[in-house]
Amino acid sequence: MEEDLAMEIIDGGVTAVQGFKASGLHCGIKRSKADLALIFSEKEATAAGVFTQNVVKAAPVILTMEHLSSGRARAVVVNSGNANACTGERGMSDAKKMAELTADALGIKPQEVVVASTGVIGVPLPMDKIQRGIYEAAEKLSADGGPTAAEAIMTTDTYPKKFAVRCDIDGTPITVGGIAKGSGMIHPNMATMLAFITTDVAVSPKMLRKALKSAVDKSFNMITVDGDTSTNDMVVVLANGLSKIPIIDAETPAYFKFLKTLERVCLELAKEIVRDGEGATKFVEIEVLGASSIEGARKLALSVATSNLVKTALFGEDANWGRILAACGKAGVEFNPSKVDIFLQSKVGTEQTARGGMGLPFSEENASRILAEKEIKIIINLNDGESSVKAWTCDLSYEYVRINASYRT
Amino acid sequence: MEEDLAMEIIDGGVTAVQGFKASGLHCGIKRSKADLALIFSEKEATAAGVFTQNVVKAAPVILTMEHLSSGRARAVVVNSGNANACTGERGMSDAKKMAELTADALGIKPQEVVVASTGVIGVPLPMDKIQRGIYEAAEKLSADGGPTAAEAIMTTDTYPKKFAVRCDIDGTPITVGGIAKGSGMIHPNMATMLAFITTDVAVSPKMLRKALKSAVDKSFNMITVDGDTSTNDMVVVLANGLSKIPIIDAETPAYFKFLKTLERVCLELAKEIVRDGEGATKFVEIEVLGASSIEGARKLALSVATSNLVKTALFGEDANWGRILAACGKAGVEFNPSKVDIFLQSKVGTEQTARGGMGLPFSEENASRILAEKEIKIIINLNDGESSVKAWTCDLSYEYVRINASYRT
Repeated sequence: MEEDLAMEIIDGGVTAVQGFKASGLHCGIKRSKADLALIFSEKEATAAGVFTQNVVKAAPVILTMEHLSSGRARAVVVNSGNANACTGERGMSDAKKMAELTADALGIKPQEVVVASTGVIGVPLPMDKIQRGIYEAAEKLSADGGPTAAEAIMTTDTYPKKFAVRCDIDGTPITVGGIAKGSGMIHPNMATMLAFITTDVAVSPKMLRKALKSAVDKSFNMITVDGDTSTNDMVVVLANGLSKIPIIDAETPAYFKFLKTLERVCLELAKEIVRDGEGATKFVEIEVLGASSIEGARKLALSVATSNLVKTALFGEDANWGRILAACGKAGVEFNPSKVDIFLQSKVGTEQTARGGMGLPFSEENASRILAEKEIKIIINLNDGESSVKAWTCDLSYEYVRINASYRT
Repeated sequence: MEEDLAMEIIDGGVTAVQGFKASGLHCGIKRSKADLALIFSEKEATAAGVFTQNVVKAAPVILTMEHLSSGRARAVVVNSGNANACTGERGMSDAKKMAELTADALGIKPQEVVVASTGVIGVPLPMDKIQRGIYEAAEKLSADGGPTAAEAIMTTDTYPKKFAVRCDIDGTPITVGGIAKGSGMIHPNMATMLAFITTDVAVSPKMLRKALKSAVDKSFNMITVDGDTSTNDMVVVLANGLSKIPIIDAETPAYFKFLKTLERVCLELAKEIVRDGEGATKFVEIEVLGASSIEGARKLALSVATSNLVKTALFGEDANWGRILAACGKAGVEFNPSKVDIFLQSKVGTEQTARGGMGLPFSEENASRILAEKEIKIIINLNDGESSVKAWTCDLSYEYVRINASYRT
């Protein structure tokens, strides 16, 4: 896909895009690390979001869903260290207060503020610290603040995640940039995935929503670290229209070029989240080919990606294709097991381990060499149609258990 | 439930029931441990089975489903050490051969034989060894062979699982006995759950199927070790009618008494499987109360039971109620999070950690004492209806990762 459209990778994350400023700082929720981030669009912007499917939604998620129903937003305020989840009425009033304080500091309306939180569940926010932090963050906003914002949204991530690209639509440059934080568990509680994306494309709210949904379905919705979904997950995009391209308000060629650029940013950020998965020693791509439907292929790929048996085998560098086939079988999708081919691949080679649903006499030595690599690919060909998908996961290691078993206090 | 109907726990597993013989021996699939079991009903018996929902079904599962469509069976032959799964046409012909050999050795029809296998995936059965083993097992059949059969079906189980009870229906004694093997992973492949149950009740095939389905839904279908389902799972019951009670062919009071007895045996065996789960250090009961439907409660309980985040927290003895609530939220069931109460319980006490979906200031010390026990209960009250269910799981430990990451050879 990337080959179709020339894209230049650029620095800066969300502030790689003209007209966006950002900042990140320590306001005191965490002991010493940065814990408050702000992103600001100098101009009014179109906005869209996708949110956790968990029935238990944190207050900021509920508030942001309301705010984005207008299709407009100008600022994103994020705190890490406290999820403001399972905090009842106080939690909702705190989330609203964060929007009001941000609006006041920036001279915009509270409804134009996206609020996100990540961290401990069930503990009220320290609003005094957050209040001071928001005003300070507004003062510190800068056109190269994207990287510091990426740091301030981290929880157990081991490094900040940012990515931006520039490409041309009919000779006019457009830019898409983003920051994300990963599926790390935080004392004491939840894995949360947050991503914030900026672009200078001019796009209608409807088409921005459509593009975001499509991009997320191929990226953030196709990754898994441990199969648990958080109360706080959200991906939000802001488009300020500063690029000189005409507004995108239908499925024009320009829309599809923008979509590819957005997909690329979502995909890179999503893969980084998996690479930095808790305790991960392997980065694993799962490709399902020859499926009779995209929906079925998606379920199969995610069933393999979430299987503890597959993930522990990968940690053990074990060419255990039986677990892969069995994980397909439990996906709740009909397919013919006796047509399935399975391949293991990495940069050092490829080994087919099953053909027509049966084991092949493969080279254990070659399979071991392949699985000893850090980046591994599992290819599952159902030989039953034209649909294909990719999913990404990591292995399940001792370290995952250690991180997640450690006591909260 | 057990209180309603006086039941006497008795020894012997499947041979605790009159008219059933069994044996177990080493035929040579494994290096030295017993690997072939036979159960035989001297009289023609009614039979029913439930089977893995995995799309990838091993040959013996497919064959046994066919055989049990008649509602009759007289023998069960089981090998451990090799699952005869993903073995193509050869696998089906081997499964049929196992039925034919068993029928020949016992003087019955091949269609009266239940065939089960558990162990390595994708490797053909050593049929010469199995052939000799079947004839030897037929010679060794005895009325106290239940325990040796329980040993011969083990894979990574650390102890054999058997249970039997006797109770009275209208003054006439009936007996139900069973053996099971657990969700252990075997070199190289799949967790398989097998259970074989015998009874001297006289019951129509239709009512036996109904009773088994109902009992399994409350027991084997409510346990999880790692959320992966095997290609080989099966639970089969044989009823020889030697008890003097009149035949059960409708939902009579006798049917419900038999059902309770059958449920008890299924439940005890299912719990033993969880207790012996790979790497398990905790046995955890999850009770969902106050649900608006049984189906919803079931999904919630199993979502908590399969959550890696909950299971690692239990290993770490961490009173992490946020993960429990979040695991409910991802079950795909609608409920009102702000009505949920969560309690942690063990024999040393009870601690409520959340009320109305919000954290309570609970005693960490008391919670730690509770979670330090080997047997723990999580109670989730949705306060939204009258339905309740129980599920059972174990924690996720370093040892689970070690067992499942170890190389196949």
